[in-house]
Amino acid sequence: MPVVTEQDNRKAVVLLSGGLDSAVSLAKARHDGRQCFALTFRYGQRHAIEIEAASRVAKALAAHRHLVMDLDLRPIGGSSLLGQGEVPRGRDLDAKEIPSTYVPARNTIFLSLALGWAEVLGADEIWIGVNEVDTSGYPDTRPEFIAAFEETASLATRRAAEGHRIKIVAPLQGLDKTAIVRLGMRLGVDLSLTWSCYNPLPGPIPCRECDSCRLRARGFDGAGVRDPLI
Amino acid sequence: MPVVTEQDNRKAVVLLSGGLDSAVSLAKARHDGRQCFALTFRYGQRHAIEIEAASRVAKALAAHRHLVMDLDLRPIGGSSLLGQGEVPRGRDLDAKEIPSTYVPARNTIFLSLALGWAEVLGADEIWIGVNEVDTSGYPDTRPEFIAAFEETASLATRRAAEGHRIKIVAPLQGLDKTAIVRLGMRLGVDLSLTWSCYNPLPGPIPCRECDSCRLRARGFDGAGVRDPLI
Repeated sequence: MPVVTEQDNRKAVVLLSGGLDSAVSLAKARHDGRQCFALTFRYGQRHAIEIEAASRVAKALAAHRHLVMDLDLRPIGGSSLLGQGEVPRGRDLDAKEIPSTYVPARNTIFLSLALGWAEVLGADEIWIGVNEVDTSGYPDTRPEFIAAFEETASLATRRAAEGHRIKIVAPLQGLDKTAIVRLGMRLGVDLSLTWSCYNPLPGPIPCRECDSCRLRARGFDGAGVRDPLI
Repeated sequence: MPVVTEQDNRKAVVLLSGGLDSAVSLAKARHDGRQCFALTFRYGQRHAIEIEAASRVAKALAAHRHLVMDLDLRPIGGSSLLGQGEVPRGRDLDAKEIPSTYVPARNTIFLSLALGWAEVLGADEIWIGVNEVDTSGYPDTRPEFIAAFEETASLATRRAAEGHRIKIVAPLQGLDKTAIVRLGMRLGVDLSLTWSCYNPLPGPIPCRECDSCRLRARGFDGAGVRDPLI
């Protein structure tokens, strides 16, 4: 449980996959005194085990509520994370092409649903753990995408029409994985609760070969600490 | 079945609720030669009967495919259309307040999912039957919202990152209900296949008291034709 400054009690919807980044994002929101409404999707991801991690993290970080929504994206498809083809192993993390694990429009979809929930809750902030330094190059992690979505959100809802500005907070933007691991540790996040692997082996055990495992390892290696999951 | 000019065979995802407006939007897309991928949501709406109408319309207008996606928005709630409270009857249609039938962020959510499907299909157009003349004043029907979403979409996906501009087409924007009914008739749409009522009576029979029934009646009255559903 991180130190909570309780400087305010503004409500925030926090997207929470159960991975490292979203856990640190939630911890930062809690640290900054937000009342957090964590939102997780059961979207047909092959690593549905991350949903259990999200529940553990939401509880450990004292989210005010945790909602797991069902939204099966497999009828749309278009991603190895949705079961179409294999998750790449040992891929060049610095390659420019967008890998098959990209899920079409995922962040737009998740932010839209977060926006709906935010309106019902009376929240003006949505937090998302995107960063574009150590990622697989997904287009919907870029600052210009986040800014554009914020513009759209501020025109989309009754709450916006009533004059509320909706803010998309991306507290990890600009940080590399090492900085994210360090921030998580500084905020007191129990990183053993998180789950990153796209392609879990029985156990479950992280495969250590997918992008997500390797980016995570890069972060722990950089921070000079051992990943409690390994 | 409307006249199809087949001027091209561009793919388009067309949001299709099963109501009057979305049926005319689909007919226009077909008339303009698009290969149409109709998308409907089972989102927990009390008038789920509209989904059957959507299937009839998609078939009659020869949509290339029709996908009905499950996305239960009731855990988010915030709308009488999702079962919270009663659907207003006999409301002043020209009142400025946004009625309880407004579903938080619905068009943002639906457009986002359409964007994901469009990417998988290789489509650069999403059609939506919004209009802001004869409506209940929902904020996410306004041209500035549609324009903002188009900006976001054009930053959100791999396809956009590869240089494709995503276009949100709102062919009914600026039309009143009378003009929409006339356009539908000119395009040969069988309007008896559509369904508008938010609050169906057993039968099912349109209630003729909700906003959606009354806006529909305004359109048929204005066009001087009898609604085949009544």
